[in-house]
Amino acid sequence: MNSMRGLCAIRGNLAFAPAPGALTTIADGYILTRDGIVEGVFNRLPPHCQAEVINYGDSIITPAFTDMHLHAPQFPMLGLGMDLQLLDWLNVYTFPMEARFGNLEYAKTVYRQLAKELIRRGTTRVCAFSSLHREATHVLMEQLEKAGVTGYVGKVNMDRNSSPELMETTEESLAETRRFIQECNVYPHLKPIITPRFTPSCTDTLLEGLGKLAEEFPEVPIQSHLSENPDEIAWVRDLHPDCQEYWQTYHKFGLWKRGTIMAHCVHSSPEERAAMKEHGIWAVHCPDSNTNVASGIAPLRRMLEEGLQVGLGSDIAGGAKLSMPDVATEAIRVSKLRWLLSGKEEAFLTVREAFYLITTAGQAYFGAKPGFGQGEPLHAVVFNDSRFAYNPAITLEERLERILYLGDKATISAVYSAGRLVEI
Amino acid sequence: MNSMRGLCAIRGNLAFAPAPGALTTIADGYILTRDGIVEGVFNRLPPHCQAEVINYGDSIITPAFTDMHLHAPQFPMLGLGMDLQLLDWLNVYTFPMEARFGNLEYAKTVYRQLAKELIRRGTTRVCAFSSLHREATHVLMEQLEKAGVTGYVGKVNMDRNSSPELMETTEESLAETRRFIQECNVYPHLKPIITPRFTPSCTDTLLEGLGKLAEEFPEVPIQSHLSENPDEIAWVRDLHPDCQEYWQTYHKFGLWKRGTIMAHCVHSSPEERAAMKEHGIWAVHCPDSNTNVASGIAPLRRMLEEGLQVGLGSDIAGGAKLSMPDVATEAIRVSKLRWLLSGKEEAFLTVREAFYLITTAGQAYFGAKPGFGQGEPLHAVVFNDSRFAYNPAITLEERLERILYLGDKATISAVYSAGRLVEI
Repeated sequence: MNSMRGLCAIRGNLAFAPAPGALTTIADGYILTRDGIVEGVFNRLPPHCQAEVINYGDSIITPAFTDMHLHAPQFPMLGLGMDLQLLDWLNVYTFPMEARFGNLEYAKTVYRQLAKELIRRGTTRVCAFSSLHREATHVLMEQLEKAGVTGYVGKVNMDRNSSPELMETTEESLAETRRFIQECNVYPHLKPIITPRFTPSCTDTLLEGLGKLAEEFPEVPIQSHLSENPDEIAWVRDLHPDCQEYWQTYHKFGLWKRGTIMAHCVHSSPEERAAMKEHGIWAVHCPDSNTNVASGIAPLRRMLEEGLQVGLGSDIAGGAKLSMPDVATEAIRVSKLRWLLSGKEEAFLTVREAFYLITTAGQAYFGAKPGFGQGEPLHAVVFNDSRFAYNPAITLEERLERILYLGDKATISAVYSAGRLVEI
Repeated sequence: MNSMRGLCAIRGNLAFAPAPGALTTIADGYILTRDGIVEGVFNRLPPHCQAEVINYGDSIITPAFTDMHLHAPQFPMLGLGMDLQLLDWLNVYTFPMEARFGNLEYAKTVYRQLAKELIRRGTTRVCAFSSLHREATHVLMEQLEKAGVTGYVGKVNMDRNSSPELMETTEESLAETRRFIQECNVYPHLKPIITPRFTPSCTDTLLEGLGKLAEEFPEVPIQSHLSENPDEIAWVRDLHPDCQEYWQTYHKFGLWKRGTIMAHCVHSSPEERAAMKEHGIWAVHCPDSNTNVASGIAPLRRMLEEGLQVGLGSDIAGGAKLSMPDVATEAIRVSKLRWLLSGKEEAFLTVREAFYLITTAGQAYFGAKPGFGQGEPLHAVVFNDSRFAYNPAITLEERLERILYLGDKATISAVYSAGRLVEI
């Protein structure tokens, strides 16, 4: 990891999304940084600029990607169990897999691979679920720090409806979470996040306790799942007959707060979406996962039009694609099918919008400005697309589209995370 | 290219699909070949066997893949123009791109890249559309031969409704096609196929002339497009008011014969599908393309249940994925959405079925037996999945599933085509 001391000018073809549907491209541009902090983006360097130039030639440089929902311990099952649906898939594959993370050597092997692979795919910010094991969660955070991945990591809570090998008591779950949060101050680039798996996995006492923790640690946000699958929604209704809607099961325990992240929202009602908007909840759209476990196609266009805060997530290993460009193009694919199914009412996602979602939208969750934000540590990916098929008449925007669609990790030649050049 | 003289035993973990939904796996098995022709598949070598053993260790060996529908000249636009729908996409991107293939140097550059990329992705059999240029079509065939790709290639016919730079007269189109067919006897592994682009691109006189050519050269099959998009179907109805259905526009000119290939069939009526079955027509399902240009989801399950002959196609560059494992998993993805939309009536495609479609089903079009057929030249792909995430408790079938889903070309370590080890 290279810490970029002094004044550096990173040169290449810049592309970033200042707003949804907008794209700025700067051919042969420069990102000027001082000690890894962006000073500005330029067509040409200011006169007498003494910066060391790092020249990426004809490569394309974009902001690095944000993955707003992934299950780190499911990395070894990427692309497995795809003939099963959500609840079967959890019981047959997921829970036995997560149970293995009681073994810290196993955790280290898997998490080292995952952290490297995230960086190789250009993902520098994550909101990750770990397993319920506090110690293995620290192993995950150590490996992410080492590789250069930043963001939020949560020790998962579940005290019911799991398998015998993957269960904790309510007391353990709360005590371990408190201890986990208190231990996290050792990580320069990672923070804890409160992570009830989903309502069916948590007793009321646990949810209530987590709500109190969220009150005690107001800087710690919350992440969970919401309205992914009709069977799950029916189950939640059975478990909480006092709640009309799924979201209220989080709300009544103080877990529905500004900055809370809810993955999926495939079958959220208009009222549930209104409650998300009202309370400043983030929705994470995970198109590949929603298709693979046959949950459906989330109403992304409606969410965007209603003004919800939305990011994209790989949701490995329901999702089989760790690469955010792949997730972005899957979001476009399913949006086209939804467009057809809605009688062409709900416009499909454009390439520009999808790019916005995995860059500017995702980084906004971390308080970062659009594109390469001035005064902020650099997060960037350098793409060398010279090995793609010969096509001389192609614009920068088309090259970006092709990079997103063909998205081979071999195309990524350098990654910057939090103002450092990280090893790929 | 290594021609595999004498007796060779290729050793590794074998996986092939003997029938739809069936999978045979042989751990540490052998494919015995003599001069590149398969003698048999074995758990262990016959006693006193003098074969030279080519040991792929713990790798997985499957039959090589068949791509039953691709547009070779669209390779440079892979992953481009994805915000457009079929007819706009044709006019803005496709026709200008195909027009460039009047330039044989350009053709050679592009087709050399395409042919290598097909092999690197494990595709050894294709049914390909070229452009309308006879000479560039020969350039394509030369490059495919050189790289080791086998199959059918067609010079495209279109004498109306194209752009000015991509048009031929009816007479030219017929004369060039006849000449093309006659010139194709120089290729050991490639054969010509009659290729009217689709009904709207061809006058009645042209279709009639092509029907006569098909009669004159009965060994030359036919490929075209069918019922991809509702606008296209309405257009065909306007052009042929005497035809109730799209398929009849091919049938009335003698282009609807046993072995004819029809790509898409997304919106084919039950009657059209019955006509396909009755006449021995092959349907090619191109899921990624159908999603990208927003055509819809083809009723694959119905086709299979009705007993149609079905293969899969990348349909580059409507499809953005050249890799047949990627196409197979996209077929699974869209089938899951169709399953949901059909009220769970039309069962989704399983991983085994998808694998069958890109191997055994596709090779059947070429008269090859299932799996590694005895007495036939070897077509095989060797996958080294050792760089995938650490997961010690995984079966051969699960490893195959993961290979299909994660499908990175770096995983392919060797490819055999038509009894030769080809360079990747």
